[in-house]
Amino acid sequence: MKRRIYYYDTDCGGVVYYANYLKFLEEARTKYMEERGLSLKGLMDKNIMFAIRRQEIEYKAPAVYGDILEIKTRVLEVTGFRIRFVYEIRNQKSTLLSTAVTDMVSVGKDFKLKELPKEVRKLFLDQLGSVKKSI
Amino acid sequence: MKRRIYYYDTDCGGVVYYANYLKFLEEARTKYMEERGLSLKGLMDKNIMFAIRRQEIEYKAPAVYGDILEIKTRVLEVTGFRIRFVYEIRNQKSTLLSTAVTDMVSVGKDFKLKELPKEVRKLFLDQLGSVKKSI
Amino acid sequence: MKRRIYYYDTDCGGVVYYANYLKFLEEARTKYMEERGLSLKGLMDKNIMFAIRRQEIEYKAPAVYGDILEIKTRVLEVTGFRIRFVYEIRNQKSTLLSTAVTDMVSVGKDFKLKELPKEVRKLFLDQLGSVKKSI
Amino acid sequence: MKRRIYYYDTDCGGVVYYANYLKFLEEARTKYMEERGLSLKGLMDKNIMFAIRRQEIEYKAPAVYGDILEIKTRVLEVTGFRIRFVYEIRNQKSTLLSTAVTDMVSVGKDFKLKELPKEVRKLFLDQLGSVKKSI
Repeated sequence: MKRRIYYYDTDCGGVVYYANYLKFLEEARTKYMEERGLSLKGLMDKNIMFAIRRQEIEYKAPAVYGDILEIKTRVLEVTGFRIRFVYEIRNQKSTLLSTAVTDMVSVGKDFKLKELPKEVRKLFLDQLGSVKKSI
Repeated sequence: MKRRIYYYDTDCGGVVYYANYLKFLEEARTKYMEERGLSLKGLMDKNIMFAIRRQEIEYKAPAVYGDILEIKTRVLEVTGFRIRFVYEIRNQKSTLLSTAVTDMVSVGKDFKLKELPKEVRKLFLDQLGSVKKSI
Repeated sequence: MKRRIYYYDTDCGGVVYYANYLKFLEEARTKYMEERGLSLKGLMDKNIMFAIRRQEIEYKAPAVYGDILEIKTRVLEVTGFRIRFVYEIRNQKSTLLSTAVTDMVSVGKDFKLKELPKEVRKLFLDQLGSVKKSI
Repeated sequence: MKRRIYYYDTDCGGVVYYANYLKFLEEARTKYMEERGLSLKGLMDKNIMFAIRRQEIEYKAPAVYGDILEIKTRVLEVTGFRIRFVYEIRNQKSTLLSTAVTDMVSVGKDFKLKELPKEVRKLFLDQLGSVKKSI
């Protein structure tokens, strides 16, 4: 996924504000899922939503106005309720800016945990490839 | 209403990003209404929401990190569906930074216009004072 | 310009938050200028920045999660210091969601007005076509 | 620190968007430092800025529109370049919504690490109290 940096992403320190990377991660997850045929909107209609349970991010180098970021997204682990995403964010010079881990869980509209539908879990498990399948 | 400027309000031009003033205006409207006994949350429970129909804002001088903004809010006009707010935003030195006008309308959950409940309209009309009551 | 709507664009009313349209307009202006060979970053290096002087926007219909917005951007007027942009925002069904006008001015790093460089002014004037050239 | 939740903090899932908690943490750190006599703006004038190096946050329960969050901030560790903050975020019912850890480092305007001024380090160390002083 490629993402251009706009004024609204930056702060008066001259670089991208630390919270805004989490918006880029949403974009990356969305693209990741939709490229694999998973529509968040479609799931919402079936009363399945995703909530973020835990986020971890390291900031190694800053991104600045006009940069084009590239985000590599991978699924590291899938359980009955939880999907763990890992990401690498690089700029147009391939400098590693940030690494991050998100734990996303499936919930109902009441925000209580709700088991991932089988086909969704399968879809993610298929992505794990040689990576350990923790289920 | 007083509002401190944080890093997240600013952009790499060193000043508050132009869209973020509209967030301050939401804070100002909310405070204005709640100080007059009008709970947005209470109205939501009665299936009445407010939507913004039109926004106009002039930027005369920039706000910077650490500034304390003061926002004066006034209701200028009330009709069956619409409330017109006007604001002046000043910094801690009383420099006028911005003036703005918001047209807010009452809608149902389907975002269709829905007449303002009588008591709500009355509450706003009482604020108009000597100002022309357009109803 | 096309722009997908993410969770972070929306609010708990279920639609795009009114301030966030101004971020889309920044994206649209940037794209407009860069497609015509004008790099904001290049200008910054020459100590020329753009500041927003005035913003006006009408919200006619809401955008929701997953929508793909299309923004048509036009320059309506160019003077020695000021460029007036007008926009139409539509969703994937071509429904008109919003119209907007931005007055952008050229400033130095001190945020004082600074005349538009001749070549920049020319570039915008060339876009006006049959539209009245106000200079 | 107390912080009201506005529309602009939430998303169409009906709850506060996960990235926005990081803005609240900025507010909490700022308040923490300023209450102890440390002005970020004053430090900026001496060419000392703070950058976030690492952020970790757990989301245990969602915050919704109208909630009043309370954030408890503590400094857990201080080294020559780094300050580690820990936080607890609760709502008006004292429900624990979130816990978080931030590693903040002192940098110059070039974003290279720059040793914390002695008086600043001392100020933070004095907060550690009986907690282990790691320096």
